[in-house]
Amino acid sequence: MRVDQERVARMTAFKHYRAHVGSRADKFYKDTLFQGEHVMVGLNCLEPGQVQPVHDHAEQDKCYVVMEGSGRFTVGDEIREAGPGEVVWAQAGVPHGVENVGSERLVVLVCIAPPGKG
Amino acid sequence: MRVDQERVARMTAFKHYRAHVGSRADKFYKDTLFQGEHVMVGLNCLEPGQVQPVHDHAEQDKCYVVMEGSGRFTVGDEIREAGPGEVVWAQAGVPHGVENVGSERLVVLVCIAPPGKG
Repeated sequence: MRVDQERVARMTAFKHYRAHVGSRADKFYKDTLFQGEHVMVGLNCLEPGQVQPVHDHAEQDKCYVVMEGSGRFTVGDEIREAGPGEVVWAQAGVPHGVENVGSERLVVLVCIAPPGKG
Repeated sequence: MRVDQERVARMTAFKHYRAHVGSRADKFYKDTLFQGEHVMVGLNCLEPGQVQPVHDHAEQDKCYVVMEGSGRFTVGDEIREAGPGEVVWAQAGVPHGVENVGSERLVVLVCIAPPGKG
């Protein structure tokens, strides 16, 4: 019975992003909400001052959706601050990264397609 | 000069979802924010009473992120109401749909990977 309940809990198609928020002292925090063959949906949480260095994925498209806080995003030649509701797009091969230059936690939902090394 | 400005505006990697909200009387409203080779990022807006009938994509993973309002989502055997911040996952081949049973507009960001027929 316990196993069945755990199985059902694992299989739900519904997850609130807030249940996946977390922090690490040494680097920004990542969690995975869902992963299929074609896309991974995860959460990145950056405390003030934390950085995701600019990098690129040659074969993966990525989007960020800012859920809380704000960050200074770099995508190609664009550098902009983005807050809640902003969607940031890094097409395959385009360098991208983000820095939390604010005073509160930055929480971004990320989709990476196809899934692979983040 | 005008052309260059338009080109730059088109190419921005930053879009706020609210700039893409809209409505139609006859069926729910869709807009595309970004599309690459591997994923499409779009917005679906359902007025109260509007429905996205249950359907499936045999070869596409999809996730919804509720931005405003709430909806009754169906994914496989699960039927649940979801509001802002909830992420709803429909893996390739799993039937899914949503109905706005509330009194305000439902706005959901959707990612479909790989892109194709919605």
